[in-house]
Amino acid sequence: MTKNFPGNYFEDFRLGQTIRHATPRTVTVGDASLYTALYGTRFAVQSSDAFARAIGYPHAPIDDLLVFHIVFGKTVPDISLNAVANLGYANCRFLAPVYPGDTLSATSEVIGLKENSNRKTGIVYVRSTGFNDSGTPVLDYVRWVMVHKHDEKGAAPGEHVPELPKAVAAPEIGRACPALRIGAYDDALAGSAHRFAAFAPGERIDHVDGMTVEEAEHQLATRLYQNTAKVHFNQFTEGQGRFGRRLIYGGHVISLARALSFNGLANAFHVAAINGGRHVAPLFAGDTVFAWSEVLECRELPDRSDIGALRLRLVATKNRPCADFPDRSGKDYDPAVILDLDYWAVMPR
Amino acid sequence: MTKNFPGNYFEDFRLGQTIRHATPRTVTVGDASLYTALYGTRFAVQSSDAFARAIGYPHAPIDDLLVFHIVFGKTVPDISLNAVANLGYANCRFLAPVYPGDTLSATSEVIGLKENSNRKTGIVYVRSTGFNDSGTPVLDYVRWVMVHKHDEKGAAPGEHVPELPKAVAAPEIGRACPALRIGAYDDALAGSAHRFAAFAPGERIDHVDGMTVEEAEHQLATRLYQNTAKVHFNQFTEGQGRFGRRLIYGGHVISLARALSFNGLANAFHVAAINGGRHVAPLFAGDTVFAWSEVLECRELPDRSDIGALRLRLVATKNRPCADFPDRSGKDYDPAVILDLDYWAVMPR
Amino acid sequence: MTKNFPGNYFEDFRLGQTIRHATPRTVTVGDASLYTALYGTRFAVQSSDAFARAIGYPHAPIDDLLVFHIVFGKTVPDISLNAVANLGYANCRFLAPVYPGDTLSATSEVIGLKENSNRKTGIVYVRSTGFNDSGTPVLDYVRWVMVHKHDEKGAAPGEHVPELPKAVAAPEIGRACPALRIGAYDDALAGSAHRFAAFAPGERIDHVDGMTVEEAEHQLATRLYQNTAKVHFNQFTEGQGRFGRRLIYGGHVISLARALSFNGLANAFHVAAINGGRHVAPLFAGDTVFAWSEVLECRELPDRSDIGALRLRLVATKNRPCADFPDRSGKDYDPAVILDLDYWAVMPR
Repeated sequence: MTKNFPGNYFEDFRLGQTIRHATPRTVTVGDASLYTALYGTRFAVQSSDAFARAIGYPHAPIDDLLVFHIVFGKTVPDISLNAVANLGYANCRFLAPVYPGDTLSATSEVIGLKENSNRKTGIVYVRSTGFNDSGTPVLDYVRWVMVHKHDEKGAAPGEHVPELPKAVAAPEIGRACPALRIGAYDDALAGSAHRFAAFAPGERIDHVDGMTVEEAEHQLATRLYQNTAKVHFNQFTEGQGRFGRRLIYGGHVISLARALSFNGLANAFHVAAINGGRHVAPLFAGDTVFAWSEVLECRELPDRSDIGALRLRLVATKNRPCADFPDRSGKDYDPAVILDLDYWAVMPR
Repeated sequence: MTKNFPGNYFEDFRLGQTIRHATPRTVTVGDASLYTALYGTRFAVQSSDAFARAIGYPHAPIDDLLVFHIVFGKTVPDISLNAVANLGYANCRFLAPVYPGDTLSATSEVIGLKENSNRKTGIVYVRSTGFNDSGTPVLDYVRWVMVHKHDEKGAAPGEHVPELPKAVAAPEIGRACPALRIGAYDDALAGSAHRFAAFAPGERIDHVDGMTVEEAEHQLATRLYQNTAKVHFNQFTEGQGRFGRRLIYGGHVISLARALSFNGLANAFHVAAINGGRHVAPLFAGDTVFAWSEVLECRELPDRSDIGALRLRLVATKNRPCADFPDRSGKDYDPAVILDLDYWAVMPR
Repeated sequence: MTKNFPGNYFEDFRLGQTIRHATPRTVTVGDASLYTALYGTRFAVQSSDAFARAIGYPHAPIDDLLVFHIVFGKTVPDISLNAVANLGYANCRFLAPVYPGDTLSATSEVIGLKENSNRKTGIVYVRSTGFNDSGTPVLDYVRWVMVHKHDEKGAAPGEHVPELPKAVAAPEIGRACPALRIGAYDDALAGSAHRFAAFAPGERIDHVDGMTVEEAEHQLATRLYQNTAKVHFNQFTEGQGRFGRRLIYGGHVISLARALSFNGLANAFHVAAINGGRHVAPLFAGDTVFAWSEVLECRELPDRSDIGALRLRLVATKNRPCADFPDRSGKDYDPAVILDLDYWAVMPR
């Protein structure tokens, strides 16, 4: 009997099936330091225990995207080891803050299955949930991936395509953000005087700076998340593949763009939800990432006088500054665009 | 008087001499995070405080090989700064668990000396021991290195070649593993249902994945261990040397191969002893490491109903997948093989 | 209104103005581990809680230069984002020890302004101070930078050139070093028997080893310090610039040279003050750094029988070993020299 794990194929999934993923992971200040070193993130709440405590956190929480990457990483061996493509995300909600010392584990429920007409592949929809050690969900999201079938003639495991919201609804935003003493929020320390009320739909912000990515950096990051997707690490195989290069984990791009977005969105301290996103093009080592944001909506939150929510589009490019906001027209993107992310961020009012 | 330290030459060693090494080092969760980022290791016991506590550890212990590398690093300036070659290891025993916050220090006792017939070099055998801050040994091992003589005409410091066991004996295995509540060991979280009883001598396991190594990665690792061996860091000098390249620390290869071995040996959560090992060929940045394992023995341990021990060969290659188990025949190795390690791992029963 | 921050131009500064910088930062054992991985530093006091406690620290302090880099990084967006050149440092004093868990914040006071005769740029002098979370200054230093004017015809904001001491005076040295039980200082663990009394002015020490720098390493370091200077990270822009390369943060060079200096100055465990320094030439990835030191003065400190101070010149080169102490004659430096730093280190007596 083979002891190594080949990953699941399309036929191996069942609707309603719940998969408990290995490996539980205690998140620590060591992970937080590495996250800072990898992306240069500067949001005051996650950077400073003193700042976080002043406004009502017990101490600095772990960066939301670091939580996402760790939970996501756990799902890879079971869900997407035999994936052809990661097709999308939806309804990603941050549900509880995560602090150094918390242990994260993850499960995925199969909520949709659809064989492709070529019968070689199928689409698997999962709702993945991350938990802390008291069993509280800290994050959930839906992801759908195209997965190889083991055998073209194999029977398809049923068909169901779930309905997914276009955006996370306002009452669900901010659940991972405790009630804040917003009077103690110090704009100078946070890096910007532009709070919630200063933003309006349609506003575009160039985040100015560029960040060049090295192979060692994205590998360190992706291993930190215990993400085992083969394409990120193995130049021997990838060198013979479609791109001839190791492919950088899409989450690395999201974190880079989010860190760059500090320059203009310094008070958007918490990613409350991800409505959806598209990795428009691959990123490779040696490329330089730039980013810009567009304000899609400004929402007051029920029963929250401390914070409001901005729905933001975060667009990242490679090797192209964003002063003129490279975008898409219809389905066609500017060829430099690599990421188009739709998310809710929380800002002090 | 010169203040910098030139390292010891063969004539400087005395049989029975004990050397206390600099620099004591407190191991922290920061080191554990870096270890994860460098190798992508996924063993649940070391990754999760919650998992470790459930089975009887006070919290997650530090990875055994990280302990080894830190202790080893301390011995380098005194033992092998003038080494021609690192010839071998034997009888490496992990004696007590190490936790974040423990301070490690190290001593070496010279247990053997033998001048080579060319009179230019000699072989030094040391038993090196790592201690925690309460003075408890956490690790010991024998290493022998070929060291330059300062002066070809210098008198040799005596001759004695110690006898070394081929393998660490069963009663000494598992001393660093507390008595476990093995009923609480969760196979799904650990990543495999294959426990001790599932393995048999002769079984071979391909660990499938490959990991490409970058210069920045092995330098970060080797500096983290405060290992000062010159060949790993100095391209100016090494560029003019035998390989024209920086040589990657052999321990980096061991940790990479061990991390890859999770895919097939996920429950082999603790390296209990290293019987011996050979760095068959050097590894350089840009190479991709693959690995496979062979089960040599399966041993029940005296008075331990919780765990059993597998004696394993861990073979690593560069730029060659291991599906067909590239090996040696007699003294000749497949040219892709870089590591052949013989160790005891502990598994839940 | 633009939300991103363009940085300050020469006209934006006012004499006597105080700037409170973003982002406060809690320093942790994770940062300390990364610092070790980045530089391979081996000073026992910062490496070992047990060693530090034995001599009278509550536990291991954060490396002085890591504190400097974090404080410095905070000042970049406000002070030097539009800088043409970083001209100098003076009177840098380490005032209180920093421990894991302390939160660092920073302010800068504008203490000098002088427009250049071309009217395109001006020199800004600031005294920057780092504070811990109880508001105690841990570090201050003067820095002067040449900054672009926004508009050549813009009025200059006054003129004042501050007087600066050539060296920090002895009574100010050692304030960040608690009174030590120096009898418990263990030379073997520290790595050298050469204490304060063993050194004399004029002595030169070659630090022997070389360290090659990779892009990923200096980027990880500089992001860890949340330093946003554009030249370090953006190959797309820098590739079209003067050097065609990303420029390595000068502080990275200082930390590399300081870590190399352990070999000869192992007991110089604390950087107490930096008198001044010059980045003689830029460093780029792929270069190998070497270093040597010269003892300028040996000073007993008032009321301190535990420690004495050495005033040291730390000279770093690239791609050139330092056995023959490459130096300057008059204003001209050996072409390999990249750093000439004048600092006070503290040693046990």
